[in-house]
Amino acid sequence: MIKNLTSVRGIKCWGAHIGIKSMRRDLALIFSEVPASAACTFTQNQVVAEPVKISRRNVRDGKAQAIICNAGNANACTGEQGRLGAEAMVETAAKALGIEKEQVIIASTGIIGEPFPTEEVVKGIEENISKLSDDPKAGSFAANAILTTDTFAKEGFLEFELDGKTVHIGGIAKGSGMIHPNMATMLSFIVSDIAIEPGVLQKAVKECVNRSFNMITVDGDTSTNDMVAVLCNGLAGNKPIESEADESYLLFREKLEEMMIHLAKLIVSDGEGSSKFVEYRVSHAPSEEIARKLVRAISDSSLVKTAMFGRDPNWGRIICAGGNAGVPFDYTTVDLFLGCETELVQVLDKGRPVAFDRNQVKRLLRESHLRVHLNMNEGEAESTGWGTDLTTDYVMFNSVYTT
Amino acid sequence: MIKNLTSVRGIKCWGAHIGIKSMRRDLALIFSEVPASAACTFTQNQVVAEPVKISRRNVRDGKAQAIICNAGNANACTGEQGRLGAEAMVETAAKALGIEKEQVIIASTGIIGEPFPTEEVVKGIEENISKLSDDPKAGSFAANAILTTDTFAKEGFLEFELDGKTVHIGGIAKGSGMIHPNMATMLSFIVSDIAIEPGVLQKAVKECVNRSFNMITVDGDTSTNDMVAVLCNGLAGNKPIESEADESYLLFREKLEEMMIHLAKLIVSDGEGSSKFVEYRVSHAPSEEIARKLVRAISDSSLVKTAMFGRDPNWGRIICAGGNAGVPFDYTTVDLFLGCETELVQVLDKGRPVAFDRNQVKRLLRESHLRVHLNMNEGEAESTGWGTDLTTDYVMFNSVYTT
Repeated sequence: MIKNLTSVRGIKCWGAHIGIKSMRRDLALIFSEVPASAACTFTQNQVVAEPVKISRRNVRDGKAQAIICNAGNANACTGEQGRLGAEAMVETAAKALGIEKEQVIIASTGIIGEPFPTEEVVKGIEENISKLSDDPKAGSFAANAILTTDTFAKEGFLEFELDGKTVHIGGIAKGSGMIHPNMATMLSFIVSDIAIEPGVLQKAVKECVNRSFNMITVDGDTSTNDMVAVLCNGLAGNKPIESEADESYLLFREKLEEMMIHLAKLIVSDGEGSSKFVEYRVSHAPSEEIARKLVRAISDSSLVKTAMFGRDPNWGRIICAGGNAGVPFDYTTVDLFLGCETELVQVLDKGRPVAFDRNQVKRLLRESHLRVHLNMNEGEAESTGWGTDLTTDYVMFNSVYTT
Repeated sequence: MIKNLTSVRGIKCWGAHIGIKSMRRDLALIFSEVPASAACTFTQNQVVAEPVKISRRNVRDGKAQAIICNAGNANACTGEQGRLGAEAMVETAAKALGIEKEQVIIASTGIIGEPFPTEEVVKGIEENISKLSDDPKAGSFAANAILTTDTFAKEGFLEFELDGKTVHIGGIAKGSGMIHPNMATMLSFIVSDIAIEPGVLQKAVKECVNRSFNMITVDGDTSTNDMVAVLCNGLAGNKPIESEADESYLLFREKLEEMMIHLAKLIVSDGEGSSKFVEYRVSHAPSEEIARKLVRAISDSSLVKTAMFGRDPNWGRIICAGGNAGVPFDYTTVDLFLGCETELVQVLDKGRPVAFDRNQVKRLLRESHLRVHLNMNEGEAESTGWGTDLTTDYVMFNSVYTT
């Protein structure tokens, strides 16, 4: 039997088709039977969807009990009509669930700038609250109901011992890689039965998001609706984690990071217009921040991405992209390795080209899972990120999208 | 008869084929008979080619008399061998021309990371200095000798009255738009016979570059070799411009900006893998800096670029890209217009979608010269930039490049 969101104690889910999208489920409900510690991260885009504004406000007290998400309409650039629709979404859910409005987190994903279908969403919530269930099938329904152009549902589940108790983390995500980001908001909802104080949870979430969802390349753009929400309802019965110094904290953060990286990699794997999955690692950096910026600059570069598509061991493009990362970068001290999951070949040694076998490397780059490793030889910090190649299909998909 | 670099008083040029590239001219020489005020701007990339390091040093005194540029090899990521090659380039030119080494500016463009062909370049300089000529043909030779993947030479010439004298500005440039930027350094060399103090010239150059070459999209990446160099030798005999308050200063700056915008637009027009030339204008902004950042964020967005390729009036992508510009951006106050050179259609009115005729706009977007105009309704500043679309050809070109 599969385990997912609903395998976490006290979590009930549902995913319904309420008619915003023509064929697929488009309303997800996630409910914790008891109030939970809650932490979110939101899009950095200056243009922010209506549900993001409301959820930002509602999560401020560090508590929440429900996550409601519709797909098919982003409720972004919708003005007053959209604001009222989002408020109605919260009010309807709170009333139907018998909880305070401040306990409801909402999200939307879909087309930007079209009037929000308030009536359908309100009616959909009212009609489906009673179907909330802890059957894993209901968890899968929810995982499917947040999708837009995604080609598969993204789920994860972890079970581990903490403080003598068995605890669980379940998560779902959406966002089909680099394809249609203006239609494909990056969303992730994660629930756990661990007991943890909201302030500590917020720190863990921020740190884990920085090492996972923030390390996947989505065209360099962030959408108007991006959101990661985590609820921890404490039903595992562990001694509540109250500080980063608690022994249990590091274990929880490690597991949360594992979950987020798992979901982030699934998102990258669903890039419809991409042909390759590429892992970028910068090691021995002076700081994690510098390593992270280098990973992002290199994995975001159109020229690096097209080289990956073309199986081209073009290290000049990688070094040049590193030079554009906005951090100190001395190519004369770096080692660079290219290859696939099982084999890496060194192409630069302290900035000097290595006489590598070009045909061997081209053969490795034919694999669908590639790796790029830059060793800065300057410190102990490192960062890893994931991206896709840039293909002719990507351009075709995106150029014919609304026309 | 055409007028170009050599139509400027005291300027002699040559462009030779010395064998770095198989078929095309690959060594350009530009010489002023008298020492000139000189100002340069250089790449912001942390990885800097050897000629950039030397030219940065040599232009520090605000004076120069020669510009020597080779194509086919970037002399970047070449280590000590490259540094010695660049020094040899300067020494050879200085000796052959009978001037101080500090009077020589050098540039290179071509493949990154291959050993610099010092011997060919040194020999090429020695053999071609004697051919320096003020025949416009020699100016064209120079314009052609700095090209790499460019499909045509980019030249400009302006003649105007200043302080009762006829003065001239001649310029050349290279960099084939968004194609092969790691092979296609953006270079521009501009000469004038105006008399102007180095400090004032430096200010004018910086400001004009910000409004021209810095406003064209080259994949968001800057290469290791980018350089703009301007020499003004004073042979026009005008009263030297000594301060930004001088009456003549504004006129000169206006003409210099006109020249740089002309050359920058030619660079964009030479995007081999592009099918459209797009002008982006942000008006009524609170500051020019904000307008500039918005233009760059929108014109750099892969999603906006693919929409242009697909003739898709997808205003959501434009607004979303604006939200990622890193400046305050309130979409509810903006008006947005899309169209071609001759006709613009309003699609957003204070953030609200206008019921425009989608088929009419799609028809306009079929043109090869498009315009996007965002009115912020917030101030008096504005900025304009130029870019291309993102096409399937772009991906093909760049993925099969070195393999």
